[in-house]
Amino acid sequence: MAEIMKVHGSALSTAAQRVFACLYEKELEFEFIPVNMAVGEHKKEPFLALNPFGQVPAFEQGDLKLFESRAITQYIAHGYADKGTPLVIPGKQMATLSVWMEVEAHQFDPVASKLNWELVFKPMFGIPTDNAAVEENEAKLGKVLDVYESRLAQSKYLGGDIFTLADLHHLPNISCAMRTHVKKLFDSRPHVSAWVADITSRPAWSKVVAMNK
Amino acid sequence: MAEIMKVHGSALSTAAQRVFACLYEKELEFEFIPVNMAVGEHKKEPFLALNPFGQVPAFEQGDLKLFESRAITQYIAHGYADKGTPLVIPGKQMATLSVWMEVEAHQFDPVASKLNWELVFKPMFGIPTDNAAVEENEAKLGKVLDVYESRLAQSKYLGGDIFTLADLHHLPNISCAMRTHVKKLFDSRPHVSAWVADITSRPAWSKVVAMNK
Repeated sequence: MAEIMKVHGSALSTAAQRVFACLYEKELEFEFIPVNMAVGEHKKEPFLALNPFGQVPAFEQGDLKLFESRAITQYIAHGYADKGTPLVIPGKQMATLSVWMEVEAHQFDPVASKLNWELVFKPMFGIPTDNAAVEENEAKLGKVLDVYESRLAQSKYLGGDIFTLADLHHLPNISCAMRTHVKKLFDSRPHVSAWVADITSRPAWSKVVAMNK
Repeated sequence: MAEIMKVHGSALSTAAQRVFACLYEKELEFEFIPVNMAVGEHKKEPFLALNPFGQVPAFEQGDLKLFESRAITQYIAHGYADKGTPLVIPGKQMATLSVWMEVEAHQFDPVASKLNWELVFKPMFGIPTDNAAVEENEAKLGKVLDVYESRLAQSKYLGGDIFTLADLHHLPNISCAMRTHVKKLFDSRPHVSAWVADITSRPAWSKVVAMNK
C-alpha cells in the first residue's frame, strides 16, 4: 500500500541510529541508502535537496521528504501506531512523554553528544580531545543523570510505564558513551544503570548495533 | 470544566514567553506566577518539585505538571485544538511541521540563544560579552537563515501555509535578537524579513511584549 521508506544516512551516525531503532521497533521494512560522509556527500547535491542543513539522516516515502531524526521517529510512531512497539501513548499521558522527549533533546543530548564527539569521534578522526570540555560536560551529565535517577525511581521508563520514544531517543548516545570512561556516570546510579541495561538489550537495538559489525 | 492553567516563570524568560505566546494565540485564561530568578527561586524548592532542572517555565493544571516550554506548547496546541489559532495541522502535514519544530530546536535556538545571552543578557547582568563567541554564532546564524530564506520563498510559513508552533517557537529569540546588531542578518534576507515582520506583529505576541512594559 504505502510506498517504501528510504533512510539516507550512515550506520555510524547517532542521529541515523535513532531512526533505524524506531523502524526496527515498529517491524517496518525500509531501504537504507548509505551516504559517504568521509567524502562529504552529505554537504553536496543531491543530498542537500533532502536536507538543506547537510546532516544525516534524511527520510523519503514517495513525495514525503523529512529530516531531523526526532521528526522522523515521531512521524513513524504516530503514522504506524498499530505496528510493533507502541512508542507513543495516546491521550493526556502524551504530555508527560513530550516533556521527557524535550529533556532528551535539550538537557541530555547537547552534553552527551559533546562527550561522544570528544571521546569517540575525535580519536577516530585523529583529532586531539579537548580535556577541559570533557571535564565540564562530565559534570553537566552527572547533574542530568541525578534527575534521571529520581525520575526512574518513580517510573520504570522516562515517559511512563512503557518503553517509548522518550527512552529510544537516548539509545545511540548512551550506547556510544558506554564504550568510554563516562560509563561510570551511568553505572553508579542504580535506577539509571538498570534502565540502560534494559533499553540497550532490546532486540531492535541489537539490530542497529549489528549494522556496524 | 478543566482546571485553571498556571504558568510559573518570568516575563523576561524567552522560554516562558514561548508558552505565553501560545496561550494568547489560543485565547485561553491562565494564571501567571512570577518566579524571582534574581534571588534564585528557580534553583530551590518548591520550584524544583515543578522542574527538577531548575529552569522556567513550569506549568500546572490540576494534577498535570509539565516543564520544557515546547512540551507545554504542544500540550496546549493539541489539547485545545478547537480554540483560537490552530497552531498544529492534523494529518500528514504534521510531519513537515515537526521537521521545522526540530529545526528551531536544534539549528536555530542554540545559535540564537547564545547570541542573545552574549548581546542582551550578559550586558543586563554586567558580565562582559565574549566577542569571539558572537562572531562564531553570527556566522552560524547566517547559514541557518540562508536555509530559512529558501524555505520561506516556497512556503509562507515554516510548517506550511498557516502560522503554527514551528513559527511561534522562534518569536522570543527573534524578538530579542532584533534589538541587537544581529537584526541585519534577518533584514538582509527578504523572505526572512517579511516573515519576521508578519509573526512579530501578531496581536498575541504584542500581549507578551506588553508583559515587560
